[in-house]
Amino acid sequence: MAEATIEAGSDEAFLATPFVQQMIKMLRAQDMHGTWDNKTDLDLLDPFILNAEKRREIPIIGDPDPEVLWRLELFYNAIAVCIERETGNIVTPMMKMSHEGFGRMVLIAGRLIVVNKQLRDVHRFGFASLAKLSEQGNKFVNEAVEMVRKYPDVVNYGG
Amino acid sequence: MAEATIEAGSDEAFLATPFVQQMIKMLRAQDMHGTWDNKTDLDLLDPFILNAEKRREIPIIGDPDPEVLWRLELFYNAIAVCIERETGNIVTPMMKMSHEGFGRMVLIAGRLIVVNKQLRDVHRFGFASLAKLSEQGNKFVNEAVEMVRKYPDVVNYGG
Repeated sequence: MAEATIEAGSDEAFLATPFVQQMIKMLRAQDMHGTWDNKTDLDLLDPFILNAEKRREIPIIGDPDPEVLWRLELFYNAIAVCIERETGNIVTPMMKMSHEGFGRMVLIAGRLIVVNKQLRDVHRFGFASLAKLSEQGNKFVNEAVEMVRKYPDVVNYGG
Repeated sequence: MAEATIEAGSDEAFLATPFVQQMIKMLRAQDMHGTWDNKTDLDLLDPFILNAEKRREIPIIGDPDPEVLWRLELFYNAIAVCIERETGNIVTPMMKMSHEGFGRMVLIAGRLIVVNKQLRDVHRFGFASLAKLSEQGNKFVNEAVEMVRKYPDVVNYGG
């Protein structure tokens, strides 16, 4: 079996999780002109990974640029799609940026906020490793799915 | 009694409702330099009232200007404060404008969306009369308060 060759805890194992697969799919979908065709999945995710060294190079205070906002939105959009697939409920994101990288991101199913995240230091958005990215994304998905199942009346309120 | 002189259904009666009083209070609070000191409460609310004649003067399609967005946000902020006062729960607004006056406004208490409003034609935001403004505001407040009381677990989720 092919799966037997993927070592648990390896990059390959994290790349194979449904959440990370969804991110890769969305990244590739945005590549209209095939300029990323020769990039590996790991290459595509590289801008999301901020190890200690890369993080030190970024100023502590700063305004988020369009690319980091794009990555942030893609991360939460991937979470939204995974929740939709798991529950069958439509999930929509809303983001509010206030000042210097502070803000709030919510994912909404009906009248329920299934993911609620205060944003800070958005200009340094990223994860220490692919493992952390995968863990964080899957954690949001799992908690949201649990919440949708716990409060179906709120999700379907007025519907 | 002073109240006896206010005729039901009159402008004075609508001005006296807690929701409209809250709007007036917030409008006056934003008048830093006292330039509105000589304006009546009705004068202050006038930009929120779009009768058929005033509405006809506004193009059907258009981008909302900062002043109309300011009025829209003030209207929903007043609703949020009234819900807070009634329930004791913090209520925060989030708005997303997409294109040409389309968007969404939500008021959030904990993990519950207590007001959910699809926005359209924001550049023509306004009410046919003071009565309509009062009715609409109070309706949102009452429905939200009912929802908070129905789903306290969702409001206090994770708290």
